[in-house]
Amino acid sequence: MCGTDSPASINKSSLPSANGNDTGSPTCSPDHVLNLEQGDPAVFESYWRKMGDRCTMVISGSQLMSYISDFTNICWFMEPEFEEAVRRLHRVVGNAVVDDRYIVVGTGSTQLYQAALYALTSPGGPEPVSVVSAAPYYSSYPDETDYLCSRLYKWAGDAYEFDKNGTGPYIEVVNSPNNPDGTLREAVVKNRGDEGKLIHDLAYYWPQYTPIIRPADHDIMTFTFSKSTGHAGSRIGWAVVKDKEIARKMSKFIEMCTLGVSKDSQQRAAKIMGVLCDGYQNCKSANKSDDLFFEHTRQIMAERWERLRQVVERNQVFSLPKYPKQYCLFSGELIEPYPGFAWLEAKEEEEIDSQKVLRGSIKVQGRTGRRFGVAEKYVRISLLCNEEEFKEFLERLSTIKSMTSNGH
Amino acid sequence: MCGTDSPASINKSSLPSANGNDTGSPTCSPDHVLNLEQGDPAVFESYWRKMGDRCTMVISGSQLMSYISDFTNICWFMEPEFEEAVRRLHRVVGNAVVDDRYIVVGTGSTQLYQAALYALTSPGGPEPVSVVSAAPYYSSYPDETDYLCSRLYKWAGDAYEFDKNGTGPYIEVVNSPNNPDGTLREAVVKNRGDEGKLIHDLAYYWPQYTPIIRPADHDIMTFTFSKSTGHAGSRIGWAVVKDKEIARKMSKFIEMCTLGVSKDSQQRAAKIMGVLCDGYQNCKSANKSDDLFFEHTRQIMAERWERLRQVVERNQVFSLPKYPKQYCLFSGELIEPYPGFAWLEAKEEEEIDSQKVLRGSIKVQGRTGRRFGVAEKYVRISLLCNEEEFKEFLERLSTIKSMTSNGH
Repeated sequence: MCGTDSPASINKSSLPSANGNDTGSPTCSPDHVLNLEQGDPAVFESYWRKMGDRCTMVISGSQLMSYISDFTNICWFMEPEFEEAVRRLHRVVGNAVVDDRYIVVGTGSTQLYQAALYALTSPGGPEPVSVVSAAPYYSSYPDETDYLCSRLYKWAGDAYEFDKNGTGPYIEVVNSPNNPDGTLREAVVKNRGDEGKLIHDLAYYWPQYTPIIRPADHDIMTFTFSKSTGHAGSRIGWAVVKDKEIARKMSKFIEMCTLGVSKDSQQRAAKIMGVLCDGYQNCKSANKSDDLFFEHTRQIMAERWERLRQVVERNQVFSLPKYPKQYCLFSGELIEPYPGFAWLEAKEEEEIDSQKVLRGSIKVQGRTGRRFGVAEKYVRISLLCNEEEFKEFLERLSTIKSMTSNGH
Repeated sequence: MCGTDSPASINKSSLPSANGNDTGSPTCSPDHVLNLEQGDPAVFESYWRKMGDRCTMVISGSQLMSYISDFTNICWFMEPEFEEAVRRLHRVVGNAVVDDRYIVVGTGSTQLYQAALYALTSPGGPEPVSVVSAAPYYSSYPDETDYLCSRLYKWAGDAYEFDKNGTGPYIEVVNSPNNPDGTLREAVVKNRGDEGKLIHDLAYYWPQYTPIIRPADHDIMTFTFSKSTGHAGSRIGWAVVKDKEIARKMSKFIEMCTLGVSKDSQQRAAKIMGVLCDGYQNCKSANKSDDLFFEHTRQIMAERWERLRQVVERNQVFSLPKYPKQYCLFSGELIEPYPGFAWLEAKEEEEIDSQKVLRGSIKVQGRTGRRFGVAEKYVRISLLCNEEEFKEFLERLSTIKSMTSNGH
C-alpha cells in the first residue's frame, strides 16, 4: 500500500521510462512519454550499487525450502532474522516503538493493509464496516478495499466527509506522511468511542522523506521495504502491532491469502537492513555521513526539491505544498520534509485537468487528483525516478508557460 | 493451495518436527508428537543439497529493485526469466500445453486459486457463484474461498452433491492428482452449459507423484514451486491460462492483492528450474538418471510407498487406496502413482476418529477426513517429510494393532 503505487492505469506508450532498471538515454528523448505516475523507487538504486557486494545475498538450492519459519511465533512464516532486523532498524531510526510489540511480515504493505482490515472486522455484522481516509488519500485504497466485494468492510471515501455525515463502525487509514501530498497526519474522525479503529500506514515515515518527530506508537502501523530502502521488487512489508489477537488475525489472513511470505525476500531484506544499521553503528562517529543511507538519500531528495521549487516558482503555473520545518529526532536538526511525490496544483483555473495538460503538452505522465479523491487541477508526480528522468522532467516542466495554452 | 498445506490448526506440542529444516534426532524421540499434518516438502531437500552450488542464487543489493518486470506483458510483474523457465520445464516434462498460453505468476498457487475465482466472477450478480470440488477435497479450499465473505463467490462444498442438487452458476476446482487421496480426476458436475467454469489445480501433476498421462490442456491450470521441486519457502506458483482476458483479470487480482510477486523468488525459481532442465538436456543420454530430479525423487517416493504398504498390510488396521498403473509419457513406462500423502481409512469401525486415535496412541499428528469433507475414519498423513521422520512414522504405525484398543 501506501505509495506502493499501482501501475494499474498505465499508458503503454510510457513503457521505456516505466522500467526502473532502464537508465539508457533513449528513455528521455522528447518524443517519449516520461512516466512519473508510479512511485517506483529507482532513486535509491545508485546508493546500493555503490555498496558493492556488501549487501549481496547468496542462497543455495537447498536452503529456505520449508513453509515454516518458527511455529512458536504467532507469525509462523516470519524468518527470525527478518524480525530481528526490523526491530533493529526501528531502534536505529527511532521512528516507531517496537518493544513489547508484535511484528507481522507481509507480501508488501499492500497485503498488510488488507490483513489489518480483516483483523479489525468480523463476519455477521448488519453492514460492512466503512473504511475511510482523509482526501487526498492514497489512490489504491479504494480498489484494495473493494475488489473482492467483501461483506466485512467497504470503501467509504473521504474521512472528513465521514466525520460530518457518516454513521456506524468505521476504520480510518491514517497515511503519514501522506501519499500524495506529503503532510504529516493524525486521525480525522472524532469522538466515536468504540466504533472507530485506526490503521497507520507509515510507508514514508523515514528520514529521507520527513523529520522523525516522535517514535510512532499506534495500534497497527504498517511499513514497507519498497519505500524505506527502495527494494520494491522484493514485495516485503511489515506491521508493528500492539494487540496479540490482532497480530494473530493478520497472520491468519496472510496464511489464507498466500500461505506465508517469500523467505528469500525476507532474508534479503534482513541482510540489507543489517548492512544499513551496521553503517550507523560503525561509521557515524567517523563522520562519513555520505556513506550512510538516510543521510545520503535525504541529501538527494533535498536537492531534488530545491531544483523542483525553482522551476515551479519560475514558471508560476503550479503551486506546491509548503511544509513547516520540524525538529527531527533522528538527525537532531530542524528539517523540512522532502516527500517522494510532488503534489502539483494548477494555479490558473479551477476546472483544469492537470494530468491531461502535462501529458498533452510535455509528455509527462502523472496521476490525476481525481484518483486521490480531489479535483483534477491536482496531479501527483513521482520524485523517486532515476536522476536522468528527474532532470528530463524539470527541463520539460520549465517549458510550460500556461496551462490553458498547453505550454510550448 | 493444493497441497500447500496450511498449518492452521497445528498443535504447538508438535513444534520440533514441524520444522522441515530440523533433522536432528530429538525430533523423533517417542515422547514427541510427530507432525505429519502439513505437506512440507522436506523430502526433496537432500537432492538439492547434493547439487552443491549449481543452484546457488546470488543477488546484489542493487538488483531487482523495481516493482515492474515487463510492462509489455499482461502480467507486468513477472520476470521474463521466470516465464521462460516455466515454459521450458513444462516442455521437458510434457505435463501441460504451454504454446499459445498465458503464464501468470503468483505468490504460491494459493494466491492463484483466489485470482482465478476473481477472474471467473463479476460484481453485481444476484448470488455469489458456488465454488465446489469433489470430496474428499483439499482442506484449505473452503477457508481460502470464504475468509473475506466475498459477494462474488462462496464455498458450496462437495461437487458430487452440487451435481445432484445444486443450481445456478458455479466454479468446479479439479485437483488432479487429488490432495488428499492421490487420484487422477476429471470434472464431476455435468451438463450445465455456460453456467460452469473450471479451475484445474495441478500442484501434484509431476512425475515423482504420478504417471504423466497426457499434456494437460485446460482453461486455467495452476502449479506450484512448492510441490514441483519442493521450494515451499519461496511462495512461487504459476497459472497456465488459455484466455487473454482471464489472464489479465488474474494479473489484476495479484496487483491489487500484493502488487506483484517477489522478484528474488521468481529469479531463484528460474535458476533452479533451469538447472533441473539442463540435467535432462545434458545427462539423460549419459544414463545417469539418479542425478535427474524426477527420477531421483520418484525413486524415493516409490520406496516410501512400498515400505508404507508393507506396514499397513501387516497390521490390518487401515487400508490405503489402490492406484492403477498407467502409461507415463515422461518416463515411457507403465507406472504407479506415488502420492505425496497417505490417505488412510480405518477398517474396523465406521465411527472412529482416526486422527484422534493416531495422535493419542502413537503421537502422530495427521489431518482428519472431516477437514476434507468426508468421514473421520479417514486421516491424511504427509509422506513428504524427511527420511528420519518417515522411518519414525512407520515404526510407530507398526505398533498399532487395533483402533479401538488404542494401539500399544
